[in-house]
Amino acid sequence: MSNPSLLILPGDGIGPEVMAEVRKIIDWFGARRGVTFDVSEDLVGGCAYDAHGTPLADATMAKAQEVDAVLLGAVGGPKYDNLDFSLKPERGLLRLRKEMDLYANLRPAQCFDALADFSSLKKDVVAGLDIMIVRELTSGVYFGEPRGIFEEGNERVGINTQRYTESEIDRVARSAFELAMRRNKKLCSMEKANVMESGVLWREVVTEVGKDYPEVELSHMYADAGAMQLTRWPKQFDVIVTDNLFGDLLSDLAAMLTGSLGMLPSASLGAPMENGRPKALYEPVHGSAPDIAGQGKANPIACILSFAMALRYSFDMGDDATRVEQAVEKVLADGLRTADLLGEEGRAPVSTSEMGDAIVAAL
Amino acid sequence: MSNPSLLILPGDGIGPEVMAEVRKIIDWFGARRGVTFDVSEDLVGGCAYDAHGTPLADATMAKAQEVDAVLLGAVGGPKYDNLDFSLKPERGLLRLRKEMDLYANLRPAQCFDALADFSSLKKDVVAGLDIMIVRELTSGVYFGEPRGIFEEGNERVGINTQRYTESEIDRVARSAFELAMRRNKKLCSMEKANVMESGVLWREVVTEVGKDYPEVELSHMYADAGAMQLTRWPKQFDVIVTDNLFGDLLSDLAAMLTGSLGMLPSASLGAPMENGRPKALYEPVHGSAPDIAGQGKANPIACILSFAMALRYSFDMGDDATRVEQAVEKVLADGLRTADLLGEEGRAPVSTSEMGDAIVAAL
Ligand SMILES: CC(C)[C@H](C(=O)O)[C@@H](O)C(=O)O
Ligand SMILES: CC(C)[C@H](C(=O)O)[C@@H](O)C(=O)O
Repeated sequence: MSNPSLLILPGDGIGPEVMAEVRKIIDWFGARRGVTFDVSEDLVGGCAYDAHGTPLADATMAKAQEVDAVLLGAVGGPKYDNLDFSLKPERGLLRLRKEMDLYANLRPAQCFDALADFSSLKKDVVAGLDIMIVRELTSGVYFGEPRGIFEEGNERVGINTQRYTESEIDRVARSAFELAMRRNKKLCSMEKANVMESGVLWREVVTEVGKDYPEVELSHMYADAGAMQLTRWPKQFDVIVTDNLFGDLLSDLAAMLTGSLGMLPSASLGAPMENGRPKALYEPVHGSAPDIAGQGKANPIACILSFAMALRYSFDMGDDATRVEQAVEKVLADGLRTADLLGEEGRAPVSTSEMGDAIVAAL
Repeated sequence: MSNPSLLILPGDGIGPEVMAEVRKIIDWFGARRGVTFDVSEDLVGGCAYDAHGTPLADATMAKAQEVDAVLLGAVGGPKYDNLDFSLKPERGLLRLRKEMDLYANLRPAQCFDALADFSSLKKDVVAGLDIMIVRELTSGVYFGEPRGIFEEGNERVGINTQRYTESEIDRVARSAFELAMRRNKKLCSMEKANVMESGVLWREVVTEVGKDYPEVELSHMYADAGAMQLTRWPKQFDVIVTDNLFGDLLSDLAAMLTGSLGMLPSASLGAPMENGRPKALYEPVHGSAPDIAGQGKANPIACILSFAMALRYSFDMGDDATRVEQAVEKVLADGLRTADLLGEEGRAPVSTSEMGDAIVAAL
């Protein structure tokens, strides 16, 4: 059997720094566990534009289609703000999601015990929080046509199209129900069926899929009420399924509740390949944070936990994933904090690479 | 001069109950301040559908166009969930917004001192919070065409269209800048210009309008980052301007931060009429709360403060508006709480009408 293959796309801003720490974990697996990953590395986002004039070169896209999993750092930065829309760093990421058909974006919002105090929410509201947001990732207003800026009469009009087919809703709903079955069997679907017909269809299809999962308690909520309820009492939720755009806002909101944005990984999964495993891309929830890039201040944990998700979902190495997660918990319990995790306690922050080293040591 | 005219649309659920308390305030103004409002009352939402087979009768629409201000309670309820989309209670409200051309929806998120403990957020994060969200209300994905559920191949597809013209963005941006000028001269505009062309145009036009308001410090934020930052440290904002759909989620989120959802009013304003005042509709931010309707549990304060906003924006009665607001603050400081405002303190709640009576007494 050939080695598991991994394409690493560090991207922009703090991407390369946090990815360097993941490399240490990968090396540890080679040296200590005899698991050698075939790792290749390439460009995405602004740095790809700088090198090739496009945020994702065709050769990189082709490579991503071949590997067992892609691990991405972050894309974007003010340097690229005035680029034409089609050349923006984000388009590279969106192309990966679309062409790999990664329709189910899993975003855990988990509150780490050692960090519960760090949330802007009251401790009892977030301590022990563990919810999973399943966001549709390949359709909706992100990709619908027509789109663009057009002349109309004597002014311009900006247009985007929200668009969902039954089968697109069906497959992501199934992913969410499957996850709910492995968790607490509670699923809440969010849309704006009171205002948008695409939401009416969404609710209908999710309800229909629910008939195949009679054990799962399914509820529906308007997305605005969802934003409220996530803020008021997030522990009422277990798994949430929602569309691409609502998922973008709601998963970021949920992430922020935990107070641990620099800690949160995500997995974007497609349909199973021939080997039975899904096409997959893993990335931290945080962005490229250009303001702190290159200063050794970034928190590598979200990226390291994204690699742990890869171990679990792409490489059947669930025990090893748990091992990485426990190493992270240990260093946090030991009091290690990167700058983003410091409240008013007056601790000295550790650097990106000190945090990575400590996690390797804890493994 | 004729009396100021007011159309009252109590709507569904708790709407009629909370509106009954506003009536007491209106009566107080007649008896004690010699200000008589010409009040008419009519149906909107589910109750209008029950009576006329439509969520807003044409005659009601015509009346709304003639009065100085409309005051609405709330619409919707599970009874109407399976109605055809075009007959849903919400369509009545949306028709009012659209045909009255109420493009600027002002949603203050204010944390009342007496209630700061009631938020799910830490007290220092929300105490003294006072931000204003200006939400575009007559365009975007709420109204864009094409829309609907269509057959395509052998499945259905749900479609909605996000659509903004330059002039639509321009006018709501101006409303927001004007408000910022009267507040702390800080405006943050939110969209997804990294993903949506309509957001690119939004950012461009807002930036352009900003040149007419050089004193206002303008910033831009992606809406997902906006949701995060509102959760993390809401006091960084003063005025926020955003589109119809993002505004729906973000204003509800902001409202929930304050812990005082039953307290928050809103104003929806159009262009100035001949008398120089804007067309206007005032409504509480909360919904129809069918679960507690008819039980005397609802909090009438949001609706009463919506009437206070009407005094300020439609009737040039700013001092009287302040008087109503102070009466509300007084009863809260006195410890009066409707059921929604009770934490674990073990106080007995007052009823909807007791709260209304207390506010009248405090006037
Ligand atoms: C970078 C951007 C294109 C992306 C999105 O909007 O999906 C990001 O916000 C995310 O949530 O992964
Ligand atoms: C009732 C509904 C149509 C409405 C909206 O989505 O605008 C409500 O949520 C609001 O925010 O006023």
